[in-house]
Amino acid sequence: MASLEDIGVSAFINILSAFAFLLAFALLRLQPINDRVYFPKWYINGGRSSPSPRRSANFVSKFVNLNFKTYLTFLNWMPQAVKMSEAEIINHAGLDSAVFLRIYILGLKVFVPMTVVALLILIPVNVSSGTLFFLRKDLVVSDIDKLSISNVRPKSIRFFVHIALEYLFTIWTCYMLYKEYDYVGKMRLRFLASQRRRVEQFTVVVRNVPHVPGHSLSDTVDHFFQTNHPDHYLSHQAVYNANKFAKLVRKRDRLQNWLDYHQLKFDRHPEKRLTIKQGFMGFWGERVDAIEYYKQQIKAFDKRMTLERQKIIKDSKSILPVAFVSFNSRWGASVCAQTQQSKNPTLWLTNWAPEPRDVYWRNLAIPFVSLSIRKLLISLSVFTLVFFYLIPIAFVQSLANLEGLERVAPFLRPVIELKFIKSFLQGFLPGLALKIFLYILPTVLMIMSKIEGHIALSTLERRAAAKYYYFMLVNVFLGSIVTGTAFQQLDAFLHQPPTQIPRNIGISIPMKATFFITYIMVDGWAGVAGEILRLKPLFIFHLKNMFLVKTERDRERAMNPGSVDFPETLPSLQLYFLLGIVYAVVTPILLPFILVFFALAYLVYRHQIINVYNQQYESAAAFWPHVHSRIIASLLISQVLLLGLLSTKKAANSTPLLVILPVLTLSFHKYCKNRFEPAFRKYPLEEAMAKDLLERTTEPDLNLKAYLADAYLHPIFQSFEVEEELVEVRVDKHESHIGSPSRTEPSSPSPPHYIYQTTLPPHYNNNQTSPPGYFYPPSSPPHYVYHYQVEA
Amino acid sequence: MASLEDIGVSAFINILSAFAFLLAFALLRLQPINDRVYFPKWYINGGRSSPSPRRSANFVSKFVNLNFKTYLTFLNWMPQAVKMSEAEIINHAGLDSAVFLRIYILGLKVFVPMTVVALLILIPVNVSSGTLFFLRKDLVVSDIDKLSISNVRPKSIRFFVHIALEYLFTIWTCYMLYKEYDYVGKMRLRFLASQRRRVEQFTVVVRNVPHVPGHSLSDTVDHFFQTNHPDHYLSHQAVYNANKFAKLVRKRDRLQNWLDYHQLKFDRHPEKRLTIKQGFMGFWGERVDAIEYYKQQIKAFDKRMTLERQKIIKDSKSILPVAFVSFNSRWGASVCAQTQQSKNPTLWLTNWAPEPRDVYWRNLAIPFVSLSIRKLLISLSVFTLVFFYLIPIAFVQSLANLEGLERVAPFLRPVIELKFIKSFLQGFLPGLALKIFLYILPTVLMIMSKIEGHIALSTLERRAAAKYYYFMLVNVFLGSIVTGTAFQQLDAFLHQPPTQIPRNIGISIPMKATFFITYIMVDGWAGVAGEILRLKPLFIFHLKNMFLVKTERDRERAMNPGSVDFPETLPSLQLYFLLGIVYAVVTPILLPFILVFFALAYLVYRHQIINVYNQQYESAAAFWPHVHSRIIASLLISQVLLLGLLSTKKAANSTPLLVILPVLTLSFHKYCKNRFEPAFRKYPLEEAMAKDLLERTTEPDLNLKAYLADAYLHPIFQSFEVEEELVEVRVDKHESHIGSPSRTEPSSPSPPHYIYQTTLPPHYNNNQTSPPGYFYPPSSPPHYVYHYQVEA
Repeated sequence: MASLEDIGVSAFINILSAFAFLLAFALLRLQPINDRVYFPKWYINGGRSSPSPRRSANFVSKFVNLNFKTYLTFLNWMPQAVKMSEAEIINHAGLDSAVFLRIYILGLKVFVPMTVVALLILIPVNVSSGTLFFLRKDLVVSDIDKLSISNVRPKSIRFFVHIALEYLFTIWTCYMLYKEYDYVGKMRLRFLASQRRRVEQFTVVVRNVPHVPGHSLSDTVDHFFQTNHPDHYLSHQAVYNANKFAKLVRKRDRLQNWLDYHQLKFDRHPEKRLTIKQGFMGFWGERVDAIEYYKQQIKAFDKRMTLERQKIIKDSKSILPVAFVSFNSRWGASVCAQTQQSKNPTLWLTNWAPEPRDVYWRNLAIPFVSLSIRKLLISLSVFTLVFFYLIPIAFVQSLANLEGLERVAPFLRPVIELKFIKSFLQGFLPGLALKIFLYILPTVLMIMSKIEGHIALSTLERRAAAKYYYFMLVNVFLGSIVTGTAFQQLDAFLHQPPTQIPRNIGISIPMKATFFITYIMVDGWAGVAGEILRLKPLFIFHLKNMFLVKTERDRERAMNPGSVDFPETLPSLQLYFLLGIVYAVVTPILLPFILVFFALAYLVYRHQIINVYNQQYESAAAFWPHVHSRIIASLLISQVLLLGLLSTKKAANSTPLLVILPVLTLSFHKYCKNRFEPAFRKYPLEEAMAKDLLERTTEPDLNLKAYLADAYLHPIFQSFEVEEELVEVRVDKHESHIGSPSRTEPSSPSPPHYIYQTTLPPHYNNNQTSPPGYFYPPSSPPHYVYHYQVEA
Repeated sequence: MASLEDIGVSAFINILSAFAFLLAFALLRLQPINDRVYFPKWYINGGRSSPSPRRSANFVSKFVNLNFKTYLTFLNWMPQAVKMSEAEIINHAGLDSAVFLRIYILGLKVFVPMTVVALLILIPVNVSSGTLFFLRKDLVVSDIDKLSISNVRPKSIRFFVHIALEYLFTIWTCYMLYKEYDYVGKMRLRFLASQRRRVEQFTVVVRNVPHVPGHSLSDTVDHFFQTNHPDHYLSHQAVYNANKFAKLVRKRDRLQNWLDYHQLKFDRHPEKRLTIKQGFMGFWGERVDAIEYYKQQIKAFDKRMTLERQKIIKDSKSILPVAFVSFNSRWGASVCAQTQQSKNPTLWLTNWAPEPRDVYWRNLAIPFVSLSIRKLLISLSVFTLVFFYLIPIAFVQSLANLEGLERVAPFLRPVIELKFIKSFLQGFLPGLALKIFLYILPTVLMIMSKIEGHIALSTLERRAAAKYYYFMLVNVFLGSIVTGTAFQQLDAFLHQPPTQIPRNIGISIPMKATFFITYIMVDGWAGVAGEILRLKPLFIFHLKNMFLVKTERDRERAMNPGSVDFPETLPSLQLYFLLGIVYAVVTPILLPFILVFFALAYLVYRHQIINVYNQQYESAAAFWPHVHSRIIASLLISQVLLLGLLSTKKAANSTPLLVILPVLTLSFHKYCKNRFEPAFRKYPLEEAMAKDLLERTTEPDLNLKAYLADAYLHPIFQSFEVEEELVEVRVDKHESHIGSPSRTEPSSPSPPHYIYQTTLPPHYNNNQTSPPGYFYPPSSPPHYVYHYQVEA
C-alpha cells in the first residue's frame, strides 16, 4: 500500500524519465544523420532526399546540427504535430492512422468530463466522515484509499451517489461511443467513396475452388463465373503455391547482405583480402575469398530459384484452389462477395479481396478443410497461454538458474562466484525469463494468428490484437487485482459461486488503485515517451548504414519506418479505457493519470504518424468495431465489479438499480452493432452502383481488364511485370476465353504461358549483383518486406 | 422411489389407456360420419367428397359403418401408414411433414443400436457386485437403481466402461446427425429445385423503406431498385396497414356464424320465431327477431368495412414502409436478398419473402425501430416466464380457493359445504390453475413470438417452439431432477460454484429415472395415442355440423384438419432425445421406453400427416437446424452431467477424458453449422442461375410480370383479384414507370389507382350472405383462418 508520497515519488521518477526520453529525442532528431530515423515518412513520400555528400559546403553539418538556436525550442514538435488537420492526415498516412488517433481523442472526450465530475463530486463524498479515519493509519490503509469508495461506511446512503455516477458515466460513454461510431463509419464510407479506382473494389477472393477432373483450375473458375455471373465476370488470377520459392528469396537476400557487407569492406580497404570459412556457420572448413564465395553462392541460388520458379509455373499442382476473381463493376464484385455461390456451402467461398499489399500470400496455400481445426487448436492454445503461461516460464526459470549456467559455461564460474554478481544474477535471472516471454509474446500471438490461416495482414493484426487483449485482461487487470496466478484464479473461479466472483474482485479493486497508477506512469507515460525516441530503429539504422549501405536504394531499405503496431497498441489502449472506466467511481484520483497518458500518447503518435510510420496496408478503419465492443466490455466489467463491491458494503438494496445497467448497456451494444457494423463488413450496393455510374460517365472508355490484369499477380511474378509483352499476352489469353464461351473445347491443363524475358530492364543495370531471374521491382513486393520484419 | 413392480403397473395402465385410445380411434374412424374428422386431407386434396344424401341406398350406412368385417382388423391403419413412400409424402403433404417424420426415424436410428449396446454391456457391468445390494432395500434405493450407474462402487475401474460408452454414443449420435443433416439439406435443395415456378423465388421483402419527402413510397421503392438493380428489378407491391379492417372481418364473421345458426334453426322449425335481446352479450335490451337483427348488423358492418377499405386505399399513411419487391430472375432476387442495399444498414433491409400463405400480415405494420426493443422485452419475459412461472399461478391459486369461490358465488355455498365436494375441490382447484396454465402456455408463447414481430408464420412457429423448449428444459427436465421451483434452482445456481452444479444434478439423475419412465409413458405413449383420436376436433366438427353447416363449403370450413403442431411437438421430441441421451449410460433401462415412444409416434404422425393434417405453409424444412442444434445441446448436457456424476463417484482421474468430449462435440456442431446451415438460410446463386436458365429455354416467352403482379397483394384486395381488368391496370402502371426512368417528373403522392368492381363474380352468387365488398376467395386467405385458430 503506497502512500500519497510514494505515488508522488514514483510520479516524479516517471515524469523525469519521460522528460529524459523527450529531451534525448529532441536532441537526436535535430541531427541530420538521424533524419532518416525520425522523418522516414517524408523520404517515402518524396518530401525529402539525402543531401548529396559532395555538394554540401560543411561536411560536419551533414551529420551534426550546429545551429544551436534550434536546440532551445526542443518541444516544438508538439505544436507541429497538432497542426496537420485530420483530412491532411488521411491523405498523408491513410484512414487507419487517422482513426487510430481518434481513439486517443475519444479517450480524452470520455475521461475529461468524467474526471471533472468524479473529482468534484466523489472526492468530497468519499472523504468526509469516512470510516477509514478511525482506523489506525499504518494498518492496511493508504492515503489513496481515503479518497476512494472504501472510505464510505457500509450501508451508507452515499452509495447512491456512486450508483448515480455509474449511470451517468455509462450514459456519457455510450453517447460518445455512439457519436464516434457514427462518425468513423461515415469517415470510412467517405474514404471508400473518395478513393480513386482501386483493384480491390472489383475483386473477390474465392477459396476452396473444387477440382473438376479433366479441367484445369483456371478453366473451372472461368466456367463457373461465366455461368453464374455472366454480365459481370471479367477475369481471374490463379494463385501459385510459392512459399518454397519465397523461402529461397529470403535466403538469397541474406547472402546478398553478406556480399554487400564484404564488398563494402573491400572497397574501403582494398589492401585487405577478406576470407571466410566455408563450413557450418563459418566456424570451420576451408578458407576462401569471401566475395567470391558469396558471389558463387548467390549464383547457385539463382539457378535453384529459376528451376523452382519454372517448376511452380509448369506444375498444375502448385496452382492453389484459390483465385482472385475480378468483375467489370463494383456492383458485380459486391454481389459476388456477399452471396453464397454454390450448393455446397463449403465450396466457392467468396469474400472481398484484401488490397494487394495486404494479402498474406503464404496462408493462401492452407487447405480450407484444415482451417476449422486450426482455429480450434489455436483457441485452445490461446486459452492455455492466457491461463497457464507461468508454467513454462517457471520451467525455464528452473533451468536458467546459476547452477545451470555454470554447468553450460564453466569458464564463467569465477565471475559468477563473485558475491555481488551472484546476488545480482539470482535476482535478475528469474525475472529475465518473464521479461523475454513478455517481449516475444506479441510475436507468438502473431504466429498463432498466422497459423489460424487468415489471408490478410490487417486481419492477422486484428486477431493478434484480440489475443493480446485477452492476455492483458486476464493477466494484467484481473491478475493484478486477484492475487495468485491466472491458473489459480481460474481454479478459484470454478469453485466459487458465480455471485461470489465479482464480490471477491470488487473488494480488492480499490486496494489496487495505487498499483495501477504506477502502472500507468511506467507503461503509459514513460513507455510512450520511449516510443518517440525509436532507440532500436536508430541503432539498427546506423548499424546498417555503416556496414551494408552502398546505394541510395540500400539506404532507403535500411530505413524501416515501421507502422502503428496495432497488435500491441490497441490492446493497451483498451486496457487504459478499462482502468479509467472501472476506477471512475471507485477511486477517481486515478483518472488524471489516465488523462495525461491519453494526451501525451495522442501527441506522440500524431508526431510518429506524420513523420515516421509508413502503413503496410489500408484497412479503412476495419478495427473500429473491435475498439467499440471492447470499451463496451469495459463498461460491463465495471458495472459487474461495482455490483460486487457494493454487495460487500451491504448496500444490497441498490442491487436492482445496478442490474438494469448491464442489460441496457448490452442492448446499446446490440443496437450499435446492427446500426453501424455492416458499414465495416459489407459494401452496400447503393454505394457500389453510385461509384460505377460516376465512373462510367467520367471515363466511358476505360479498359478495366487491362487495369485489373495483373493486380493480384503473385509477388514472384511481379519481377516480370515490367515487361509490357507479358501483360498483353495475359490479357489476350483471357479475351480469347471470353470470346469462346462454349466450354466444349478440351481445356488445356497447362498453366498460362508466360513469355519470360531474362534480360534486365535498363534502369536496373546499375545493380550488378541482381540475378538474371530475380530482382526487386521499383516497389518491392510487401510480402518480403514483411517477412524481414517478422524474422528479423 | 418406485420399484420394478410399480413401473410394471404404471406401464400396464398406460399401455391399457393407449390401447383404449387406439381402439376408440379404430372404431370411430370407420364411421362415415367421422370421415371428415379422420381423413380431411383427402377431402382437401380432392380425393374424397361427401356422399350425396339422396343417392345413398342405405341412409344409416351414411353415418354408421355396418360392415362388421372392417372392425376385425382395427390396427390396419398402421401398415397403411407405412406404405406411402417418402417421395409420395413430400408430394402429398409437403417437405415439412416428410422431414418432421424423419426426426422420429432419426430417433430410432440413434436409439436402437444405443439400446442394444447399453443393455448388453452396461446392465451386467452395473448389476454385478454392486454397492447397493449391501444397503437396506427399503432405504432409498429402487430396483431400477440396481441396473443403473448408482450401483457401481465409487472409484471403481468400471466407470471407464461408462466413459467409453459415452464416447461411443456421442460419436454414433454425431454420425447419424451428420448423415441426416446432409440428407435433409439435399432433400431441401432438391425440393426447392424441383418446385414449379413460385412467386417467392422471385420476391424479396424490403423493410424500413425510408420516407422521401415529396415522393410516394411506391415511387421511392421504384426509384431505388431501378437504380441499384437496373437489370433485374421488375415490380413491387406496397403493403397496407389493414389490421383494423382484418378485425372488422373477424367480427363480421362471428356475426355471420350467429346468423347461420339462427337461419338453420329457423329452417328446421319454421314455426318458432327466434328472438334475442339487443343489449350487451344478449343479457338485456329490447327483444328483436334474431335473423333480422343479425342481417341488419351484418349490413352495418359491411358499410363500415367498405368505408374502412376505401380509407386504407386512399390514405397514403396506411401504406407501410414495407414492400414486396419482385425481380425478373431468381438470380436477381437471390442477390437482393443476400446483400446490403443502403449505406445506412438499418434502411432498405432485404430478405427472402415468405410464400404468400406464410406471410403474417399483421406484423408487417410493426415499426422497424421497435423490433429490437420488442425482442429485448420478450426475451426478458421469456426468462421470467421460465423461471418465475409458478408465482402468478400461486397467486391465482390463492384467489381461487374455496373462500374466494364462496365470496364470488354465494349461491354455491350449500354445494361446496358438502364434505365430499369440499375435499375434492380443495384437492382439485390448486392443480387446476397449473393445468390451465400449462394448457394455454403454447398460446402464450405464440403471442409472445408475435409481439417479437416476425413476419412469417413459419418463423413464428419456430420461435414459439424455441421458447417452449427452454421452458421444458428448465421446468420439466431440470425441474424434475433438482427439487424446488425453477426460481429456487436459479437462486441456488447463482450461489453455487459452477463445478458444483453438474455434480448436484448428476447425483440426482439416476434417482429420477423412474419418474421419467412414467413421464414417457403418460406423456409419450398415451399422449400420442390420444393425438390420433382427435377428440377435440371430433367434438367441434359435430357441433358445427349440427348448428352451422348449411352448404358443402361450410362443411369444409368446419373440418379444421389442423397441422403438425410444431411449437409443441418439436420441443417435446427434443426432450425425448435429451432423456434418451442423458440416461443412455446412466440408467439404460429407460431406453426401451423411449424406443416405444419413437416407434408409436412415428406411426401415428405418419398416419395423421397422410390422412389428417393440412399444412398452412411450406418452409422446406427450415426447422431442421434447430432440431440438430438441440440434439447437440442434449449431448453436451449429458456429458456435463456425467462428468458431475462421476466426480461424485470419486472417479476423478477420468475427468480429463470427459472434458475433451464437449470440446469435440462443439467442434462438430460448428463444422455442421458451416457445412450445412447455409443451405437453410441462403439460396445459392448457382442454383438460382440454373433454374433461371432452364426456365428461359423451356418457356422463352413467359410473362413474369403478369405472373407476379398480384402475388403479394394484401388479403383485403384478394377479393378484387379475380377481375382481369385490375391486373392489367397495375401492370400497365409499372411498365410506364420502367418506360420512363427519368425521375424528374414530380411523382404523384396518390396511391395506385385500382379500378374497383363491386359486383360479385358469378361463381360466388350462391353465397347469398356475402357482403358486396367482402367474401372468401376460392382459396380463402390463410390470414383469417389462422386467426380463428388462435382466438378460438
